This record gives sequence, C-alpha cells and structure tokens, in this order.
Amino acid sequence: MNASNDWVRQPARALDRQARRAARARQARLTKPAGALGRLETVAVRLAGMQGSERPEAERVHLCVFAADHGVAAAGVSAYPQAVTGQMIANMAAGGAAVSVVATAIGARLELIVLGTVSPVPLHPRIRLEPIAAGTANLAQGPAMTAAQLARAMAAGRAAVGRALEDRAQLFIGGEMGIGNTTAAAALACALLSRPAAELVGPGTGLDRAGVAHKGAVVARALALHGAALSDPLGALARVGGFEIAALAGAYCACAQSGLPVLVDGFISSVAALAATRLCDGAGQWMLLAHASAEPGHRLVVEALGDQPLLDLGMRLGEGSGAAVAVPLLRLACVLHNGMATFDEARVSGADG
Amino acid sequence: MNASNDWVRQPARALDRQARRAARARQARLTKPAGALGRLETVAVRLAGMQGSERPEAERVHLCVFAADHGVAAAGVSAYPQAVTGQMIANMAAGGAAVSVVATAIGARLELIVLGTVSPVPLHPRIRLEPIAAGTANLAQGPAMTAAQLARAMAAGRAAVGRALEDRAQLFIGGEMGIGNTTAAAALACALLSRPAAELVGPGTGLDRAGVAHKGAVVARALALHGAALSDPLGALARVGGFEIAALAGAYCACAQSGLPVLVDGFISSVAALAATRLCDGAGQWMLLAHASAEPGHRLVVEALGDQPLLDLGMRLGEGSGAAVAVPLLRLACVLHNGMATFDEARVSGADG
Repeated sequence: MNASNDWVRQPARALDRQARRAARARQARLTKPAGALGRLETVAVRLAGMQGSERPEAERVHLCVFAADHGVAAAGVSAYPQAVTGQMIANMAAGGAAVSVVATAIGARLELIVLGTVSPVPLHPRIRLEPIAAGTANLAQGPAMTAAQLARAMAAGRAAVGRALEDRAQLFIGGEMGIGNTTAAAALACALLSRPAAELVGPGTGLDRAGVAHKGAVVARALALHGAALSDPLGALARVGGFEIAALAGAYCACAQSGLPVLVDGFISSVAALAATRLCDGAGQWMLLAHASAEPGHRLVVEALGDQPLLDLGMRLGEGSGAAVAVPLLRLACVLHNGMATFDEARVSGADG
Repeated sequence: MNASNDWVRQPARALDRQARRAARARQARLTKPAGALGRLETVAVRLAGMQGSERPEAERVHLCVFAADHGVAAAGVSAYPQAVTGQMIANMAAGGAAVSVVATAIGARLELIVLGTVSPVPLHPRIRLEPIAAGTANLAQGPAMTAAQLARAMAAGRAAVGRALEDRAQLFIGGEMGIGNTTAAAALACALLSRPAAELVGPGTGLDRAGVAHKGAVVARALALHGAALSDPLGALARVGGFEIAALAGAYCACAQSGLPVLVDGFISSVAALAATRLCDGAGQWMLLAHASAEPGHRLVVEALGDQPLLDLGMRLGEGSGAAVAVPLLRLACVLHNGMATFDEARVSGADG
C-alpha cells in the first residue's frame, strides 16, 4: 500500500457550470413562484453542477461507516466504556443500529470499515477489517498516530470511495463510530480553527457538566502538548485525530477529486470535512451539509465550511445517521426538479401575466 | 347537507397516555445515547400517543388539497392572475405540480377538492367538484362568505377526513390552492391573534415591497370593516377566510375528533390549524408542524400553535407541499423507533457501564 499522503493535495474536480446554469434555468420555468421551494431548489441546482447533468439524481447512495478506537478514552472522556465501539459495529452489521435501520429504509448500500478496535469485532459480510492498530495512542500524551498510520487511514477512505464509484454511486455518505471520538474531533477542530478547547468541546454521547469540563481540560492539555505541530492539517490529523476521522477526511478528498457529491453528517464528520477542505483545494464545493448537530461545537465548524445544513433536528448520534436521514430530502429535491411541469407544458399563466 | 357548524365544537379525542409512556420507555432502551435522535424521538413518541400504539407508523398518508378562488383577488393582492387557481388544479391532477410530484414519490393518496373557482376546472378522476360558489366575495368590502357557505366548506373538510379514515390513513395532510389566499389567511391570523396587518402580511407568491404595502392596506381596511365580528373564530372564518381555509379548519377539527394525526403545512394551513384549535378543544395535540414557511407571518402563527416545525427549508409554495416533503422524516422516526435494537437485544453496554 502506498504510505504517502501526496494524493490528498490534488485539487478537486471542477464543477460543471453549464449543467448548473441549465438546472437554474429549468427551476425558473417550473410551475411555482420563483424560489418557492427554497433550499430544495438550491440543492438540486448544486447537485446538477456536481453530476454534470441538468437532471440530478440521488438514488444510489453509498454509506461507509469507519470505526476505530481512541487511546484518549483512557482519560475518561466518554460516558460509555470503550468496548462499545466493537459492540456497536456488531449491532450495525446485525441491522439494529440507527444507521443500519435508516440505510435499509432509504435503500443505501452500507459498508462498515473497521480500522482498529480494542475489543474484537465479528466476521460479517458487511464488515471490512482493515486494521491499522488496536486504536490510536492517547492524544493527550503524545501523537495519536504515526505518519504511516495516517497514510493508511486516509488511503482506506480513498479506497472506500473507489468502491462507491465502481457501484456508480450518485452520493457518498461517511459515518463514524469510536468511543472518545468527539474528543479527538474537538481537538482537531481547535487546531484547524485556532480556537480554544472550551469553544469546541461538548457533551458528546452525554457527559454532564463536570464531564465536559474534564474533557475540555484534556483537549486543552493536548493542544498545549502538540503546539506548532497542529498548524499543518496533516500534522493535526496525526497528532490529535483518529483513524476513522482521517479515513473520512481522505474519503472526502477522494470524492472531490473524482467528482462524487458528499452529504456530510454531524460534528465529527464535519470536522473531517473541514480538514479535507484544508488539504484538497475546492473540496468544499462537493459537500452538502446534512444537519446541524446538537453538539455545541458544530456551529463553528459549519460556519467555517460556509454552508447551511439542511436539517436541524437536534440529532447528535453520529454513525452517518443524520446524513442518511437527509437523503429523502435530496431525492425529493431531485424529483421535484426533474418531474414538475413547466409553465409552458402545463399552460399555467406566469406572475403578473 | 347539514348546514350547521355545531360539530366543530366537539372536543378532540384524548391521547393514549399509556402508549405514549410505553413509546418513551422504548426510546430509552434503544442502542443510542438517550435523546441522540433529537426531534425524531419526540415525534415518534407523539405519534405513538396519537395512534394508541407503542409502535407508530406513517405509511398510509392521505393528502387533500382544497382549492377555491377569493373575491379579494380583485383588490390586486397577488402577483398571479386569478385564472391560475383553475390552471393549477389541472396541473395538480395531471401530475405536474409540486404537490403531485411529492405525493407520487412518497406514495401518498392525493385528492383535489374544488370548492369553487372563477375559471373552469377539467373533469378528472382525482378532482372532486364540491362547488359552493365561484369563489368568495371580496373580504375588503364585506363578508367573504355566508354562514351557510362556511358550514358547507367546513363540512367538505370533515367529509375528506371521513374518506381518509375509510382508507385507514395513518396521517392526514391538508393543502390549499387559491390565488389571493395569503391575504385571507393573513387577515384571519390578525383576527385570531389580535395583531395588526403589518405583522402578518407578507409577499405571498412574490409581491414586491409596494405590493406588500398595498396588501397590508387591504387587510387593515378589512379588519376595520369587520371589527368585532372577527372576535369569534367562526365569525372570523366567514368574514375574512376562504372556502379552502375553512375546509382545512374543518378537516383539522374532524381529525382531532376522530383521532387521526395531522401534519400541518405552511402559512395558510397553519392559520387554518390555529382556527381549529380555537374551535375544537385539544385539537392542537393532534397536529405536527411540518415546516417553517418563508412567509414572514408564519413565525407568529407557529408561536401561537406552541410547537416547533420539523423543517426549515425556506419553502413558501403551499399546496401541502412542505408537509408532503416532511413525510419521509416522520416515517424514518417511526422505523428507527420500531426497528432499532435495544441495548439488551444487541448486548451493547450502557452509559457509565
């Protein structure tokens, strides 16, 4: 396996401006007041520009959940024991987790990619075992991973996108599972945004006030420890990231480079997406934000990504579940765009007609 | 036909507290941090209480669009000519309107009920002709309708709910079409909320600033003209409402009385829903708000209804389209609630376990 990360620096594919223009013109002819479908119109037009077609589609969805354990869990930053990472992968494979239920309901192809867990995971046709190590090292005490491990994690993300393209996916969703990963994501967001821990650290799976304060102190210590090494996005990913977070960042870069639209999930996925935009020029143009997470730090990350999430339902589950829930909205945006009659076709009078 | 409105004053059916409690307890056992699915959890629990089942469903959806013309269109309050009401009904029946496209995509049963239009509408199996008059009278010059016409409009809404129940619908959506109907809805909202015209009047289908000012003056004149007659909700419906708005109010009362959950669309539907809550005690408990409309007055109406809309996509199309777009979210809320594994079933450790 190529242990270099050079590929992530390749720029994103250019959008198809002609398709986007044609889609915008089509929206203006549909039998409704201009703009009356709100964000459903802009989303359809954006997808048209990404897919290079006046008539975009979001039927074939590839959903990859990357899972890994985090050494920082030893610092007591989660309400759940570390064994839950492996248990939840088994639950996802068996169909009982939120992301599995939604993936089935929306007909998405679900892939579970295990990059390294402390506890064993079952052999299952839906689970791909691509172990890098039994979790990262504790980011509060040293680098979470080596440069070689980072390269392997990002390559795993890129390979998943390769499989999505082979499946002729029209939309890519990344999800994550890993006890302790809101701590890693918060630290990474602090590094990317040059913000203090208190602005990005939140309750995650459900810490109380004291738990959040402790988690904040752990992240602050990590930021002080790694210092200037965090100023480079790859350095930050290696020092305070996680295998699944790096895989997501790699996947988002690969999507942008190969022209596959991405629907970004909540807090952790958005931080990975932010890392991708710092690595791959133009990557943000290939991303749609699915939902505003209830995790308080998400707001700053969304601001930095410069887009508005489609949903705001107070979700904070991760796994890719929030993005999966938003898929029907993208599909309806497309079927409205493609299926509505124009004023001419329906012989409906226009405004001030 | 019974020309009395006495039936609307019957109280709503009581919710099933035991089913709601059982659903809430089930949510707490599912393999996710408590509350991590946000509004999807509360919606599933509310539906459970309405449907009297720990496992709610939103598969069978009955979508009724009520259409009628408005005498106040003569006052120049819309960007579109009045002929568009009839043209859009034809477009809805032919499948080209937004609501038709979404209804097909979500597999909802779509009924178009024409209560009176100025221009002719085609004969079509999807269109029910239940004409009351060729539109209302101009509410800026006198009562929009007589008491008998109001009773017929509300009865049409009740009858539509009867058909939904015969179809064993699990969710009712009302939609509306009628050039000029944001003017009637704004006037009705002013009456119900005791607010001045300027707070409820907006651009509707796309008026410019001068158009909104003129529309505001028309509504202010109507409020002054009808005065104290607006203090009673039935009086307000007759004086400044519309046939389709009254039908929606009647439908919402009938849903609450017969125990059929309602998904309320945007501005006009929400004003009708507010009227229903003033007529039928407890009706609001049977309503879920689908989306926050871009029509500025919607915010005040939503506040008065005391719930938070599920979506905020900047939609302002009416027809029931915003509610139809929210149906997949309700369905996913239900399939997550019903289909996720519990901690015990999946052998996943709980918090602080």
